[in-house]
Amino acid sequence: MASCIFCKIIKGEIPCFKLLETDKTLAFLDINPLSKGHALIIPKFHGEKLLDIPDDHLTDILPIAKKLVKATGAQEYNILQNNGPGAHQVVEHVHFHMIPKPNETEGLGIGWPEQKTDMDKLKALFEEIKAKV
Amino acid sequence: MASCIFCKIIKGEIPCFKLLETDKTLAFLDINPLSKGHALIIPKFHGEKLLDIPDDHLTDILPIAKKLVKATGAQEYNILQNNGPGAHQVVEHVHFHMIPKPNETEGLGIGWPEQKTDMDKLKALFEEIKAKV
Repeated sequence: MASCIFCKIIKGEIPCFKLLETDKTLAFLDINPLSKGHALIIPKFHGEKLLDIPDDHLTDILPIAKKLVKATGAQEYNILQNNGPGAHQVVEHVHFHMIPKPNETEGLGIGWPEQKTDMDKLKALFEEIKAKV
Repeated sequence: MASCIFCKIIKGEIPCFKLLETDKTLAFLDINPLSKGHALIIPKFHGEKLLDIPDDHLTDILPIAKKLVKATGAQEYNILQNNGPGAHQVVEHVHFHMIPKPNETEGLGIGWPEQKTDMDKLKALFEEIKAKV
């Protein structure tokens, strides 16, 4: 997409710290890292959300994430992909973050508003989703 | 692994709200959801962190995540995989969260301690990682 900053990086119109490239995927350093080694993995196929990316592009992503973990030497780390502005997505081209978590202050901060187990509610929801899957 | 709760779920020794299963992967509802539809996707291969999972098991994960997003009808959502207790991992068997983000209070909370762009530092780090990738 002409106006997409990640499509411009893929085409080489904007430079990046390119770590890895396949025919379907590009990986590079995030220039506003949450921690040392924070990298992005993006499909070359333009799509805003996970649902928009063909499976044969998605299968390429996680093995590349593994290679980045190895190369950075991260011991603890988060793999994160945000969909929608309410879910903290900023650039509207699917991207996976590999974020090393070296200590409490650097890396991804996680809020976990866990709900109590409600078996009746879960069972009803399960029937509903299961019918659509 | 005999003592692993997710291995027990895979073997059927502990019940779950099973949404999807392939020969390599299992998906089921999280019983302490952060939001309605919060689901887990796990490789049947036991491994603690992303690095421990063979690529041919990893390639199965994201296409299944897509199916769960579709079935739940989530419009905004996060895909998250935590590695290590410091990075918020609790069960020591790789699991991917698909967490719908319906509003500000439910779903994943994200802290983003972004660092300022430091091109010299990034360039040095890039050379270091690039040599190992």
